[in-house]
Amino acid sequence: MPLQQLSRVFLPAIEAELERTVDLADGPGMEEFHLMQAYHLGWRGEDSGPEASGKRIRPQLVLLATGASQAVGAGNESPLSDDWRKGLPAAAAIELIHNFSLIHDDIQDNSPLRRGRPTVWKKWGIPQAINAGDTMYALAFIALHRLEETCGPSIAMEAYQLLLQAILKLTQGQYLDISYEGRQDLTLDDYWPMVSGKTAALLAACTEMGALIGGASQPDRTAYRLFGFSLGLAFQAQDDLLGIWGDEALTGKSADSDLVEGKKSLPVLFALEQGGAFARRWRHGPLMAAEVPELARQLEAEGARAYTQEKANQLTGQALDALEQAHPGGEAGSALRELALLLLKRNA
Amino acid sequence: MPLQQLSRVFLPAIEAELERTVDLADGPGMEEFHLMQAYHLGWRGEDSGPEASGKRIRPQLVLLATGASQAVGAGNESPLSDDWRKGLPAAAAIELIHNFSLIHDDIQDNSPLRRGRPTVWKKWGIPQAINAGDTMYALAFIALHRLEETCGPSIAMEAYQLLLQAILKLTQGQYLDISYEGRQDLTLDDYWPMVSGKTAALLAACTEMGALIGGASQPDRTAYRLFGFSLGLAFQAQDDLLGIWGDEALTGKSADSDLVEGKKSLPVLFALEQGGAFARRWRHGPLMAAEVPELARQLEAEGARAYTQEKANQLTGQALDALEQAHPGGEAGSALRELALLLLKRNA
Repeated sequence: MPLQQLSRVFLPAIEAELERTVDLADGPGMEEFHLMQAYHLGWRGEDSGPEASGKRIRPQLVLLATGASQAVGAGNESPLSDDWRKGLPAAAAIELIHNFSLIHDDIQDNSPLRRGRPTVWKKWGIPQAINAGDTMYALAFIALHRLEETCGPSIAMEAYQLLLQAILKLTQGQYLDISYEGRQDLTLDDYWPMVSGKTAALLAACTEMGALIGGASQPDRTAYRLFGFSLGLAFQAQDDLLGIWGDEALTGKSADSDLVEGKKSLPVLFALEQGGAFARRWRHGPLMAAEVPELARQLEAEGARAYTQEKANQLTGQALDALEQAHPGGEAGSALRELALLLLKRNA
Repeated sequence: MPLQQLSRVFLPAIEAELERTVDLADGPGMEEFHLMQAYHLGWRGEDSGPEASGKRIRPQLVLLATGASQAVGAGNESPLSDDWRKGLPAAAAIELIHNFSLIHDDIQDNSPLRRGRPTVWKKWGIPQAINAGDTMYALAFIALHRLEETCGPSIAMEAYQLLLQAILKLTQGQYLDISYEGRQDLTLDDYWPMVSGKTAALLAACTEMGALIGGASQPDRTAYRLFGFSLGLAFQAQDDLLGIWGDEALTGKSADSDLVEGKKSLPVLFALEQGGAFARRWRHGPLMAAEVPELARQLEAEGARAYTQEKANQLTGQALDALEQAHPGGEAGSALRELALLLLKRNA
């Protein structure tokens, strides 16, 4: 289980890198300003701790891709060299960008809870939450700046460019998601541009930045990028499946179903395009928790579950193929495969 | 009048640099996403045009500081060399950061109008407006990236760092401003940290970035930074004066007075610290337009106008001294002095 071992090495280093960055926002009279950052990242306030921090998947992906491309050609057992630390500024930067987008997302979606705790806007109001997100956005690039120390200015500039292009795609995906609100004419074609931006672009930046920092060849770097991108799409398709047919959504609390939230997920867009009984019910108005089990059955009968599962499988295959083509080496390479499987093989 | 001549050269180049950057947000299906950027910048939609774009003071400051530090030692008449173009990526970046902050500010302040037109959130709703600001934020750094072409990666990295530190201070100032809402115990000490962040930090970044790009010596660069910073504070003090005793605020439409908006401006904080009749009225609740002329007289009688004017004069002196110490050269140097005087010598 190299992943578990490497996570034990990476996670404290990621938290330390995040903390040293976020501490730059502190200062006299800035205690509460700093607290908003520390609260959202799960370090301070009620119910703080690892549960509140999230799994730090993205920074781990950066560090694994860094380590795996540094070890190109080395066998599965070949131990990690300390050079993975070069990737820490990029790992922290991507986690901060992800979290800035969550702070703003929670305002945009009117979500009161995030990882079981009140969202930043619920605690401090919308104006402060917008500003807290803007602050975390700057901190991300401040973190990335330290890449000049670890890799020199040219690689640092290239990393800036990669992250900026990912954020531009992220905001394009977010624009689409918001603009779909209330639209009744969506089809499957509307799904992929949205999730490419909202989910896959940042994961592609994770693996490509790791490859850049680890000194991968240009073809390997392209493969790392495709790996992250396909992983993002496969993960999203899988997540959409669980959001309707997962235990929580279906048998646990139906109110947690994506159907009640009106989410434009892959199975729903498939069924809307079919124009059958599910589509007619969807267009009639918001779905209620009590209807969820029956509507999930209806969706399945119309082929939405099989279609989504097939897409998830296909994208998973694409991600794993790309990973092989990237020539990940050493125990970091094995751990990277393990992480991909862990993210994708969740049972629906 | 070198300023007017140079503005005629700079302004079209600034608009072109902004447009080529903002066009990167366009693409199939992204027409409206792009329109939000173009609308806010004054290029598209109702009442578009120079009035809607604002004066582009900040990018002009960057270019003037670039030209003036390139011409160090040259006489006032010495014409501008074409090297000022090196500063265009930084000029565009700062204008985009300024405008991203305005888009978010308008949401935070619940402002329906900006430069006489509906604000982005009024036209597209709060979720899209948050996202439009986030997009412009990324575009700013994408613009700055081209500094690698014009000045090489080391200067580009330094410019990133300068801009990031300015944004961090901007968000700290914004945090203070929002946190003052509803507070009755504010004093003069609460004023300077807020305006240092909200106004002066970005102007300091303008002049320091120009100096960096123009190749100023370290002492000159420090002086350019202090010039921009003091200019920002002086401008704000002057603006606060006009917000109460300017023609519009006092005799024109009293509803436009800072007093009606409840703005924590320098004269108001002075009077609150005095604890006289004005402070008692202020603490009683929102001020009405009808009371404005009398309250402005009361404020003046308590010494707030004289105090603010004195501070503005003192900071203006500090700004002009710093500018001399920066050794600005050539016609760009003369124009920089002219711009500073233009910004500061507005009659109250």
